[in-house]
Amino acid sequence: MLPKDIHEKESLLIAGIMSGTSLDGIDVAFVEISGEPGKPDYRLRSFHSVPYNPALREQLLKAYDGTLPSRDVFHLDKLLGDRYASAVKNGAIEAGISMAAIDVVGLHGQTIYHDPPNGVTVQIGSAAVVAEELHTVVIDDFRTADIVAGGEGAPLVPFCDVMLLAHPSRNRIALNIGGIANLTWLPAGTSIENLVGFDTGPGNALIDAAMRELRGLDFDEEGKLASEGSVDQRLLLSVLSDAWFQTPPPKSTGRELFGEERGREIARRARADEIEDATVIRTLTQVTARSIIEALERFIVPCREIDEIVVSGGGAKNSTLMQALVELAPETSIITSDSLGLPGDAKEAIGFALLAWATLHGVHNNVPSVTGASGKRLLGSIRCPKVV
Amino acid sequence: MLPKDIHEKESLLIAGIMSGTSLDGIDVAFVEISGEPGKPDYRLRSFHSVPYNPALREQLLKAYDGTLPSRDVFHLDKLLGDRYASAVKNGAIEAGISMAAIDVVGLHGQTIYHDPPNGVTVQIGSAAVVAEELHTVVIDDFRTADIVAGGEGAPLVPFCDVMLLAHPSRNRIALNIGGIANLTWLPAGTSIENLVGFDTGPGNALIDAAMRELRGLDFDEEGKLASEGSVDQRLLLSVLSDAWFQTPPPKSTGRELFGEERGREIARRARADEIEDATVIRTLTQVTARSIIEALERFIVPCREIDEIVVSGGGAKNSTLMQALVELAPETSIITSDSLGLPGDAKEAIGFALLAWATLHGVHNNVPSVTGASGKRLLGSIRCPKVV
Repeated sequence: MLPKDIHEKESLLIAGIMSGTSLDGIDVAFVEISGEPGKPDYRLRSFHSVPYNPALREQLLKAYDGTLPSRDVFHLDKLLGDRYASAVKNGAIEAGISMAAIDVVGLHGQTIYHDPPNGVTVQIGSAAVVAEELHTVVIDDFRTADIVAGGEGAPLVPFCDVMLLAHPSRNRIALNIGGIANLTWLPAGTSIENLVGFDTGPGNALIDAAMRELRGLDFDEEGKLASEGSVDQRLLLSVLSDAWFQTPPPKSTGRELFGEERGREIARRARADEIEDATVIRTLTQVTARSIIEALERFIVPCREIDEIVVSGGGAKNSTLMQALVELAPETSIITSDSLGLPGDAKEAIGFALLAWATLHGVHNNVPSVTGASGKRLLGSIRCPKVV
Repeated sequence: MLPKDIHEKESLLIAGIMSGTSLDGIDVAFVEISGEPGKPDYRLRSFHSVPYNPALREQLLKAYDGTLPSRDVFHLDKLLGDRYASAVKNGAIEAGISMAAIDVVGLHGQTIYHDPPNGVTVQIGSAAVVAEELHTVVIDDFRTADIVAGGEGAPLVPFCDVMLLAHPSRNRIALNIGGIANLTWLPAGTSIENLVGFDTGPGNALIDAAMRELRGLDFDEEGKLASEGSVDQRLLLSVLSDAWFQTPPPKSTGRELFGEERGREIARRARADEIEDATVIRTLTQVTARSIIEALERFIVPCREIDEIVVSGGGAKNSTLMQALVELAPETSIITSDSLGLPGDAKEAIGFALLAWATLHGVHNNVPSVTGASGKRLLGSIRCPKVV
C-alpha cells in the first residue's frame, strides 16, 4: 500500500510535526533522511513554528481538562488536522520546498489524555486530514502501541537522542525542557538497547500556567520575572513533596499532574498568602531545576557517569532556569543543543521524522528499557489514501 | 513495515470485524482470500457473533448520544479493543483456526459519531489493542479517508457487494437491513466504476428502540409482535415526512436521525396517544419497508432495471418486514442472500475482510459514485507493531 518508489529512493524528505504539552503551537521540521534503516543520516532542511491562536488553545486546554464534550473533541481533531496541514504547507512555501517533494509526514499530534496504568493515551489532530491535504504518506499514533504493551508510551525521544546526541567518548544527558521535562542518559558510544530515559516532572508547564494566572502572559520570557524574585522554600518543598518525584523510572507524566490547573492553583494560593508574583515564578522555576537535578542524582548518578548535560526545548531559553541548573550541578558541564548545531526548538519535531523513518523501514522504535513496555514494538499507524 | 511474507502468500486469512449501528454486538468473519488484488476469490471459513453485554451496550449508547464524557470514551475505546480481540480469539478456537494462521484483521469498529457535512466520523475499538493481543496486521479507520475527501464515508459495502453479489445476467439490488438500511444497485455484469448505492433510512434501529421502550426487549423476534398489529397511517406518514428521505443520493445516515432516542420518543408519544404496542411496532416495520421501496422507486427505477432484490442483515429474519417488502414490490423477486449461499448475517464482516485485502494491495476501495467523495481513496490505516 506504500507508494512503490518509497523504498527505492536514496533519501526521503520527512516532515516531523510536534505539538508539546506546553500547548504553545505546532512545530514542523523538514528533515532529509537517508542511509541505513537503523542508522540513518539526517539533515535538517528547515524548521517552522506556528503558535496556536488563543481560541484554539482554549479549546485544547478544555480537551485536556476533560471538560470538552466528546463531540467537540471529535471536531477539534478534524480542525487540528487542518491546522497541521496548513503549518506544513506554509512552512514548505517559506523554505522553498515543493509540496511534491515531501514523501512522508511523521505526526505526533496533540496529547489530550495520557493514562499509562490503564493503557490509554490520546493524541488528536487528524492524520486522515493531513494525508488528504498533503497527498503524502502519514504516520501517526506513535504512543499507543507502546502503552498497550504495558509501557508508559513516553518518552519516545530517547530513540532519537541516540541518533542526534550520542557521542563516541563523552557520557551525556540529553535534557529536553518542554511543558514537561525529560532526559535520556547517553553513555559514550551507546546503542539503543540499554538506554535509560524518563520524565523528570514539570518543565515549563507550571511556570507558564502561573504566568497566565498572575500576569495574563503565556510564559516568562527568558526567565526575566523569575530573575526578580527569590525562592520561597516552603512553596518549593510543598510542590517537590509530591510522591511522583520519588517513583523510580520508567515513568512519564503530563498535564494531568503538572499542568494548567495545578499551576494556576499554586499561583492563586501563593497570591492569597501574599507571596510576590516574581517569587512565585522564581520558585516554580526552581521546582523545575531541582526536580531535574534530583532525578539525575537519584536515578542516574549512583551508578553512571555524566560528562555533560545537553539542554533543548523552550526551557533552554530561560536564563534563570539554566542558571539554576548550573548552580545545582556545579561540576557538570551544561550546554545547549544549539551549541552542538542541533536547534533545541526543533529537536522533538526532528525526532518524529526519525521515528517515522524507522516505522517505514520496519525498525522497532520504542525503547522498552525507557518506557517499561513488555517488548519492542513498531510504533505508529500508516496511511496513504491518495498515493499508490 | 509489513511482514515480509505477506505479499508472497498465495492466500491470506483475514478476520473481518463488524459492529453495526444496531449496537447489538461483534461479528467476526474468518475469510480466506486469494487471487488478483482487484478481483479476489474468497471463501468464508467461519462466522461468529458475540452480543454486547448490557453494561457495555449502555456505555456505547451514551457515547452515541454524546452524553459520555470524553475521557470515558477514551477508556471505552480501549475496552472495546479488548472485546474485539477476545471475539477473534474465541471465534478462532471455536472454528479450530490457529491464531498464528490469521494474517490480517480488517476492523470496522463501532461508530459513535458520523457527521459527513463537517468531515467527521468516529469509530472506536482500539486497533492498537487488537494488534497487540493478536500479533497481526490490523487495518482500521476505513471511513475517515472518504469523509475528509468530501464523501459520506458510507456506505462502504457496495465495494464488496460487487464481489459478493453481482451477477453476469441479472440486475440486482443488494439490500442490507441492519440498524440502518442501505442498498447497492448491481446491474448485470457491473464493475466498481459506476455503482449506485446509498442508505435508505432506518433498518431495525427504530423498531429495536421502540421494542426496548415498550417491551424491554432488544428486538421484535421474527417480526412476531408487528404481525399482531396494523399500520397506523398517521404515525407512518409522520415518520416518513422527514425531509431526509427526499434527499437524492449520495447520502448516508446513522443513529443521529433514526436512532435510539428517536425510536423511544416515537414509542412514548404513540403510547400517550393510546396506540397499541403491536401497532406501533407494525408501523415502524412499515416505515422501514416503505422507505426502502420508495427509495428504489425514486432513485433507481426511473432509469434502471431491477430483476431481484437480495436481502441481508438482521432485517432478513424479520418475516413481517420481508412480507411488507413483497407487498410493496409485488413484481420484483425478493430473496435472501442466504438463499445464494452468502450468510446475510456475515456479509458486512466479510466486507471488511475484503476492504482490508484491497488496502493491503493498494487497491482503492471507496466508491466515489456512492459516497460522493471527490476521488478514489485507499481507505484505512495500517499497523503491525509486533510483526516484522
